[in-house]
Amino acid sequence: MKVIVAEKYGFCAGVRNAISTAEKVLAEKGRVYSLGPIIHNPGVVERLAQKGLVTVDNVEEIPAGATVLIRSHGAASEEIAHLKEKNADIVDATCVLVKRVQQIAAAMENEGCKVVIVGDRNHPEVRAVVGCTKGAVVVGDESDIKKIGDNARLGIVCQTTQSPEFFGRMLSAIAISGFNEMRVINTLCKEAIKRQQAAIELCLKVDIMFVLGGLESANTRKLAELCKKYNTRTFHLQNWDEFDKKQVFGCKTAGVTAGASTPQWIIDDFVKNLVEINVAG
Amino acid sequence: MKVIVAEKYGFCAGVRNAISTAEKVLAEKGRVYSLGPIIHNPGVVERLAQKGLVTVDNVEEIPAGATVLIRSHGAASEEIAHLKEKNADIVDATCVLVKRVQQIAAAMENEGCKVVIVGDRNHPEVRAVVGCTKGAVVVGDESDIKKIGDNARLGIVCQTTQSPEFFGRMLSAIAISGFNEMRVINTLCKEAIKRQQAAIELCLKVDIMFVLGGLESANTRKLAELCKKYNTRTFHLQNWDEFDKKQVFGCKTAGVTAGASTPQWIIDDFVKNLVEINVAG
Repeated sequence: MKVIVAEKYGFCAGVRNAISTAEKVLAEKGRVYSLGPIIHNPGVVERLAQKGLVTVDNVEEIPAGATVLIRSHGAASEEIAHLKEKNADIVDATCVLVKRVQQIAAAMENEGCKVVIVGDRNHPEVRAVVGCTKGAVVVGDESDIKKIGDNARLGIVCQTTQSPEFFGRMLSAIAISGFNEMRVINTLCKEAIKRQQAAIELCLKVDIMFVLGGLESANTRKLAELCKKYNTRTFHLQNWDEFDKKQVFGCKTAGVTAGASTPQWIIDDFVKNLVEINVAG
Repeated sequence: MKVIVAEKYGFCAGVRNAISTAEKVLAEKGRVYSLGPIIHNPGVVERLAQKGLVTVDNVEEIPAGATVLIRSHGAASEEIAHLKEKNADIVDATCVLVKRVQQIAAAMENEGCKVVIVGDRNHPEVRAVVGCTKGAVVVGDESDIKKIGDNARLGIVCQTTQSPEFFGRMLSAIAISGFNEMRVINTLCKEAIKRQQAAIELCLKVDIMFVLGGLESANTRKLAELCKKYNTRTFHLQNWDEFDKKQVFGCKTAGVTAGASTPQWIIDDFVKNLVEINVAG
């Protein structure tokens, strides 16, 4: 069948940097600890594990003096302090855009603002940003707004991979709930927005849409949700193993995009196989 | 019939101050010029005209050295400068909240922000705020957002009598269209919001709703629009003369509210007459 790949998709600069940093440090040290999975892609995590990357859930599990990679999502100030106490050799691969959110949030709090982070409280990026402040509030939906309380000045940032529509909707809800002054810094990743836009454009041209990426990957899930709005025949698959010919029944043209943590070989493999599928005309 | 008056309605502090200032100055001077109608209520304007208040459309029409009242909506810096050139004796009755919007807009522009005023470009308050800046943009609906252009920092304020919902909706649209940084100061009048809330609550309790005030009064029109959303049987009337018994056909309970420029006697007269209307049970 005919397959069109989105104009922008796959690994972002932050993910590429984290993986290449990990590979470089692993080649030097042999054994490196990662605080949480380096990216939400089991294939990549496994490949790096074979090279010596040990993924742990918290600082307690890391032996003193070990080399520790901070993944692209970043880590909380408290975790960094804890690692320093343990004399860890810290290799920071935090995405520059995520670092910027952390710095803006901390600076706004120092200036006397109540910091508000628009995003998913359970995502590691958001948890790390919260961890860089003393009392930031996470707004993930309208019901969180009451937690902001009555503050003179709000300092508002957004998780880098959210959509402008979500950020706008939450800002509107915050404004309607009442405020005195708000300073809002646009911390959305422009690359992520371009991927979302390219995916939407593609959705409108094809009979069926495939969004490739780990089921745990927040940005892939968000991309799939967005695609579903514009093309109801959207499937979020991890790789070609999850493809089923029934999915493309009656379709002539398929679109393919992928999350920021989906490696190129998964996309190449999927496209190569999909092109060879014969669909009944 | 049963008549319930909204908990908050009618003259706001800014309007009361403008009228009492006008009366005081008229008693002293005999002849005073008003740059635009002092409030959007023909009855009040006529009563003050009889005492010597001359309403003019622009500074050209005012003789040199005359006493000039700046109404609660304010006047642009340019107009004030022009009046000073003419040696006018300026009596400033600009509402303190409107003055605050003017000062914030000018200060934000001095700090390097592109100033955005959310509101109705034709309303005298908004025109006066724009006139206190060099290049402010007025956003009255989504189509105005393209006029903001690509600016590093936006400084955003709102016309005092708009609703939080409208302010929120425009902030969301500005955010979605893309921005770097925005500083938003809530310049909505809390009294106006309380009136809107009281009107909504009343709408839900009554069979029919009357909103009293001048047809030119922006805040009365906005109040009537809002009421229509919650009670489709809403009438915007100027006074009892416009009442028609057919309007209340089949209704047992009527609600009454009024804009910020509607004098108490119009409301009292309307309620007194409405109570005496006999409706078929």
